[in-house]
Order: sequence, then C-alpha cells, then structure tokens
Amino acid sequence: MQNRFVVIPIGYIEKTEETTSIIVHEAYKGALLNIEFFSHLIVLWWITDRDSTENRAVLQVRPRGRPPLSGVFTCRSPSRPNPIGLTVVGLEAYEKEANRLIIDRIDAFHGTPVIDIKPYIPASDSIRNVVLPDWFEDLKSPWDP
Amino acid sequence: MQNRFVVIPIGYIEKTEETTSIIVHEAYKGALLNIEFFSHLIVLWWITDRDSTENRAVLQVRPRGRPPLSGVFTCRSPSRPNPIGLTVVGLEAYEKEANRLIIDRIDAFHGTPVIDIKPYIPASDSIRNVVLPDWFEDLKSPWDP
Repeated sequence: MQNRFVVIPIGYIEKTEETTSIIVHEAYKGALLNIEFFSHLIVLWWITDRDSTENRAVLQVRPRGRPPLSGVFTCRSPSRPNPIGLTVVGLEAYEKEANRLIIDRIDAFHGTPVIDIKPYIPASDSIRNVVLPDWFEDLKSPWDP
Repeated sequence: MQNRFVVIPIGYIEKTEETTSIIVHEAYKGALLNIEFFSHLIVLWWITDRDSTENRAVLQVRPRGRPPLSGVFTCRSPSRPNPIGLTVVGLEAYEKEANRLIIDRIDAFHGTPVIDIKPYIPASDSIRNVVLPDWFEDLKSPWDP
C-alpha cells in the first residue's frame, strides 16, 4: 500500500477586522459552481503550525487542558498524525469575482491553507442521539449566544 | 506559502461479509485512548482510485449523475483536487487488542487508507436549519430504514 499522499492548498483563510473569508485560488474557481445554494460548508484546512515531526508524533493530550488524558483521535487536538483541521461553517455570502466565501467564523488563523470544501448535507452529516463522554458534554455550540 | 503537504495513512478499512471496521496501524494505537466513550466518529479517508492527475483536475460534475452541473466543492464527488473522503460513522465496538473499530457502514472500499479519525461533537458538528438546493433535498439518511 502506498504510504504517503500529497495534499495541495486550494485556497486560504483571510481574516480582517470586519470579515472571515475563504479565498479560493483562481485555478479552482470552477469548483465553486452553485455554492450560493448552501447555507453550511465543511472546511478542511491544514494546521500549518503543527506540521512538524514532533507535533505529528503526539498521540495523547489533555483536551481543553483538563483531565483525562485522551488519544488525539478522541479529541480535536491540532497536534495529530495528519494535521488536518475540520470546521463546519456558515456561508454568509459568495463574492464570485473575488473567489471569496464570506463565512461566519473559523478556528483557523489568517493565512491558513484550505485543502477541501464540502457541502454540509444533513442526511449524512447531522447526527442525533450522539453519546459523548462527560468531559465534552458542556461544550457550547459556536452558534449559541 | 508552502504548496504541498504530506499525508500518511493511519489505518485502513476492512470489510468482510459480517463487519465493516477501521484497523488502526499499531504505531497509532495510543491515539485511540477513550474512543469507547463516543458513539459517532468523523472518518477521513483517501480516495485512492481518484488520486490521479486527471481525476484531481475535475472541477465540475453532475452530482448523482443528474443535472445540474455542479462544482466539486458543492457536492461530495470523489474526484476533487484533494481526494479526501469524509464519512460520519457509528462506532459499534472497539476491539482493543486488534486495534479494530467496528463501525456501522462506510462508503469506502475494503483496503481504503484512513488518514484521520475525529470524535463527532454535536456542539460544532450537528447543524440545524441547513439550507440545501432542491437536488439534494431528497437525500435519505444512511441511518434511516
């Protein structure tokens, strides 16, 4: 089995005082056709500052700085074998000429490379009756007041 | 900005007549600590059979073989600039000695490389009031009868 794969940036995060956006590289503009019909997107991004041999070897952390020690596959640690971030975002506007998707928020820094955008489809992505350990049950939704 | 990143497999999909599983490579066993407390996982996998220059250059397709033509960032096309598959799965059992996660189903072939596993956390991942174009509104949940 092949033991490494190559990922290329398709855009980047732009944060200003006013807005948070995904700027899609001109070469991938065509991949945005019909994006304005979707309210939410799944954004995959590259956690650039954790792309080191040391950070990629981290297997256990304390999520949110608290006990208990947890595997990186059981929390959303930015240090993980493949530093891929995943965030569901709300799409607020599409400025077509600028290849710009204005989004509500994202937990990625300005300049972060974006590697994929997928539409959020409730039939497969929105799960009810989820069971979580108690150390995650008090998490607030980023959309709650 | 760096223009390519390296992704490594952390496991693979195993499908038998009886079960569908993720087998995690021994080196990443520690990253599964506490996985048994979660009912659902987000699995990122490498769409191996679309990892070609030709498939990665596809920017528009007809989702589900029907009109209208759509950008690959506005559907879940396996042909896309970075062939990363994303599936939310139900975790049925964790066989610790075998590094095996038995899951309910996944739309990936036997042998597919898995590149990341994240816990499904409703606060950030389960969205209500999603707007979709009408050509996706009849999608059935894989968990519905």
